[in-house]
Amino acid sequence: MSGKLLNNINSPKDLRKLSPEELKSLAGELRKFIIDIVATKEGHLGASLGVVELTIALHYAFNTPEDLLVWDVGHQAYGHKILTGRREVFETNRRLNGISGFPKRDESIYDTFGTGHSSTSISAALGMAIASNLKGETAKQHIAIIGDASIASGMAFEGLNHAGVSKANLLVVLNDNAIGIDPSVGALKQYLTKAKVGYKPSQDNIIEALNFRYFGPVDGHDLDSLLETFSELKKIRGPKFLHVITTKGKGLKKAEEDQVKYHAPGKFQPDTGELLPYDTKGLPLKYQDVFGLTLVELAKSNEKIIGITPAMPTGSSLKYMMEVFPERAFDVGIAEQHAVTLAAGMATRGFTVFCAIYSTFLQRAYDQLIHDVAIQNLPVVFCLDRAGLVGEDGATHHGVFDIAYLRCIPNLIIAAPSNEVQLRNLLYTAQLNLKSPLAIRYPRGRGVKVEWEFPFKEVEIGKGLCLNEGSKIAILSIGPMAANVSEAIQKLEASEKEKFGHYDMVFVKPLDKKLLQNIFRRYKTLITVEDGAVKGGFGTAVLEFASEMGFKGKIKCLGVPDKFIEQGKVTELQEISGISVENILAQLKTLV
Amino acid sequence: MSGKLLNNINSPKDLRKLSPEELKSLAGELRKFIIDIVATKEGHLGASLGVVELTIALHYAFNTPEDLLVWDVGHQAYGHKILTGRREVFETNRRLNGISGFPKRDESIYDTFGTGHSSTSISAALGMAIASNLKGETAKQHIAIIGDASIASGMAFEGLNHAGVSKANLLVVLNDNAIGIDPSVGALKQYLTKAKVGYKPSQDNIIEALNFRYFGPVDGHDLDSLLETFSELKKIRGPKFLHVITTKGKGLKKAEEDQVKYHAPGKFQPDTGELLPYDTKGLPLKYQDVFGLTLVELAKSNEKIIGITPAMPTGSSLKYMMEVFPERAFDVGIAEQHAVTLAAGMATRGFTVFCAIYSTFLQRAYDQLIHDVAIQNLPVVFCLDRAGLVGEDGATHHGVFDIAYLRCIPNLIIAAPSNEVQLRNLLYTAQLNLKSPLAIRYPRGRGVKVEWEFPFKEVEIGKGLCLNEGSKIAILSIGPMAANVSEAIQKLEASEKEKFGHYDMVFVKPLDKKLLQNIFRRYKTLITVEDGAVKGGFGTAVLEFASEMGFKGKIKCLGVPDKFIEQGKVTELQEISGISVENILAQLKTLV
Repeated sequence: MSGKLLNNINSPKDLRKLSPEELKSLAGELRKFIIDIVATKEGHLGASLGVVELTIALHYAFNTPEDLLVWDVGHQAYGHKILTGRREVFETNRRLNGISGFPKRDESIYDTFGTGHSSTSISAALGMAIASNLKGETAKQHIAIIGDASIASGMAFEGLNHAGVSKANLLVVLNDNAIGIDPSVGALKQYLTKAKVGYKPSQDNIIEALNFRYFGPVDGHDLDSLLETFSELKKIRGPKFLHVITTKGKGLKKAEEDQVKYHAPGKFQPDTGELLPYDTKGLPLKYQDVFGLTLVELAKSNEKIIGITPAMPTGSSLKYMMEVFPERAFDVGIAEQHAVTLAAGMATRGFTVFCAIYSTFLQRAYDQLIHDVAIQNLPVVFCLDRAGLVGEDGATHHGVFDIAYLRCIPNLIIAAPSNEVQLRNLLYTAQLNLKSPLAIRYPRGRGVKVEWEFPFKEVEIGKGLCLNEGSKIAILSIGPMAANVSEAIQKLEASEKEKFGHYDMVFVKPLDKKLLQNIFRRYKTLITVEDGAVKGGFGTAVLEFASEMGFKGKIKCLGVPDKFIEQGKVTELQEISGISVENILAQLKTLV
Repeated sequence: MSGKLLNNINSPKDLRKLSPEELKSLAGELRKFIIDIVATKEGHLGASLGVVELTIALHYAFNTPEDLLVWDVGHQAYGHKILTGRREVFETNRRLNGISGFPKRDESIYDTFGTGHSSTSISAALGMAIASNLKGETAKQHIAIIGDASIASGMAFEGLNHAGVSKANLLVVLNDNAIGIDPSVGALKQYLTKAKVGYKPSQDNIIEALNFRYFGPVDGHDLDSLLETFSELKKIRGPKFLHVITTKGKGLKKAEEDQVKYHAPGKFQPDTGELLPYDTKGLPLKYQDVFGLTLVELAKSNEKIIGITPAMPTGSSLKYMMEVFPERAFDVGIAEQHAVTLAAGMATRGFTVFCAIYSTFLQRAYDQLIHDVAIQNLPVVFCLDRAGLVGEDGATHHGVFDIAYLRCIPNLIIAAPSNEVQLRNLLYTAQLNLKSPLAIRYPRGRGVKVEWEFPFKEVEIGKGLCLNEGSKIAILSIGPMAANVSEAIQKLEASEKEKFGHYDMVFVKPLDKKLLQNIFRRYKTLITVEDGAVKGGFGTAVLEFASEMGFKGKIKCLGVPDKFIEQGKVTELQEISGISVENILAQLKTLV
């Protein structure tokens, strides 16, 4: 499938045998190879197309794997993977037991640092560079390749601020395409744009102010320029910075024209870029859209509602509110820490702020949640998108720790709807008269109900639901696991079904103590089911209360086990984690 | 006790009646008042002395509380508290039921945002400013006062980056004294220093590059200049930045000369600044010093050891290693996120990195711990200083959530020594041949043993200790709670004592399952005791394993309850939390 040059590249050594003209042909082949595979196997497209020449130039100019490349985030590392011995397995990208969609140390010596979340590359590469200095390996090069959205995150600034006073042999390559997943925002972005369009940064350049030597901007699709620049940069020791201008989606017209959609476009026609039709008729809406559309509906009648997203307007669907109420909906860029404290500041002035953050990214704002929101008991609403197992993005992106890390925080309410209507009503309730911070966690992707736009109903905080009573065993589920449990019960024979009671607890905190006390009285055996870490999670909350109450029965907790779960389909990962319909069914059968 | 002008200032309204000359006298009185009280009652000294004039000028020039001041960190807010109606209660500063050592919303309408951790002020003030715009309150001023150490943290950059593209009426006042608790570091610091010494920042000033209007530098001890400047700044809308130069400890010679020691000097002679003698003979060493000195000892024979602290070289005692091995010990500034990923980068190159971070500040690097360290299973050693209740710093600083938020992370080992010798041996073990990340949590302040420099002994990972066996009830303690439990047992009558077995579990994760299984067989009642959040903590880990094993006995978990604990002496806060010697004794008596 790959072209005749690419076909012979099994490592960067092979690459270095090519002539400059052959490298240009190779770029074409590599681009075609990425397009062809991603068109049928899906994955992230635009970012890798944008750095085809940069990737070739880096591996050509630098002596990888002796020289160390750190790809920030890693969406753009497909070319790197293909050129470093993974061409033939690239079609397994993002699949169970296949290669990861991100750089991963276990996978290749060329993947020096695992990524997935943004803005870590400068710190990691600086750590490597300082280590090399200590080892006396002074010829080694350390290169962080970071996008303009990622470099605006505070963590990247911390790395630059330290690197600037170090003697580390660090090269930061800014891959400036003016977009992350959505267009980049912020003052730094404006500054970089000025630099791009010819406003000549002087000695007082913001990067030089941080003690870096600044080079560029160079055209990131001009291989000759890149090779010449790298060849010069190799001779310069200490912290240096190269500003490279690229086009996301380069080489596929449609991807260049609609960069947001072609970030991860799903299946498409490889030659034209035409997206393949995908029939959503009859499918439930995505939780994200239920969130986004409901927020607009609420914001129409409640002018105190504000929405915030750190760089995920499209992913979280906050874009709907940004379109209708641009003055009350904010994309603050990859700045989770700022997003949460900004929300806290707004809440002190009487606003109800919906802060839409992916579960895995809220880890970035954990301190702000505790220190700025919970201690002050400010009624900020955290809409924790992509909670639970997220599928193909793998270990770095699963939102499985949130229940455990949130449950210890005083004042915080934690809810997890089991369907779209519950999510809608929780959002409604959140803006009525909330007195404490509230986290609402919901999964990536489609819900379970087709109809969801019923009139709003207030949800009682801390109230669970009995879906059906049973004679022997109570199953307590939280969030979307209700569906798996219901399905498992349905698969039992009629005589067995009546033994199982099923309770959708809705709230992890406060627990519905009255309902639980009834359950403790009625059943001798309980099963808890959650799509999060079983250590410290929802089941553990039930264990704690059961212990307090002196419950003497048996409690079996199902949830994501104490290991990192890799990529795959959500159903596959549920199976591995022991929370699939079949797993639950097997448990039920064991217990009767 | 206060001077004749200060004595009549009960709110900023009173202040605004004074003449410019009177304001200067007031500055003297305020400075003397702070010195006199802190000299006897203890607290943070240097920061507040440095902003006496700035504080007066802000409250004079702006219409507080209508205009909103946000003090970053809050060490420097004593003058603010004294001028805003808390002069008479100021002597209760940092005491149980007294006023907080930090701004706190519950305490005063002038405390617009609670602080304690650094670098939150820009985000919070920006949130308020955006809220004011939405409310149509366009005359309102929003002012963040932030130090040069705090502004170098990534979170502050995120705030600036957003503010620069907003139309918010935000003034950022940089209180540049070139020091946080320890001297400031980093490239931004160097840049600011250049600006201070007369290198005239041009239009390309780093702050102007972020779309702020830059003013200054001005002498922060010159009241006339400050008043004139603020009067001008009030007329300018949008984001603006004032660079103010101050001297930490201003007005007390010794505090100006030794700014690190006089950050929080303990008791001293108010007139001379002479520290009052404090006899430490016969007292155990601080855990911090055991850490710092042991690390130097280990680093002498193991050249792969690196130490990192985010801005706490003195507090954590990493300063010892920085003195002996400056090339292998790094103060990276207030940059916890960077510190952890930097450590991960170094670990990929074969180094054993000891990352010394206060428990409460590791909340800032939670994602980096999961994403960059634990997923990659890199053997970074987290030395979690000030774990548990820290005393007078209060709710923002207690290190009580760490066990709960760390326990859900796969690959991570969590240990808590119960004395200095254990800490020493854990540090020794950590650099032998560690295969996974390890967190060692230990409390603020002095240990329990006077002699601790015994030859190193390797600690078996996951192994608990039986301190004494009992006939009826097992007490399982973690970390320093072993001492409270031992003392409680000692207070029992002889006939009761033998009923209680006491186990020092040492490891929260992995739990010593073999020991626990023995305990489950031997006892029908267990008590767990920890100095961390009882929700999701060590006791919960025991509950989880007991449930798995089908243990049918009773387990009582003692730990910090599910609410934020305010300031006070550690012993007082232990009493409130139910984990003091007396609390434990009462529990033991209830159970026999």
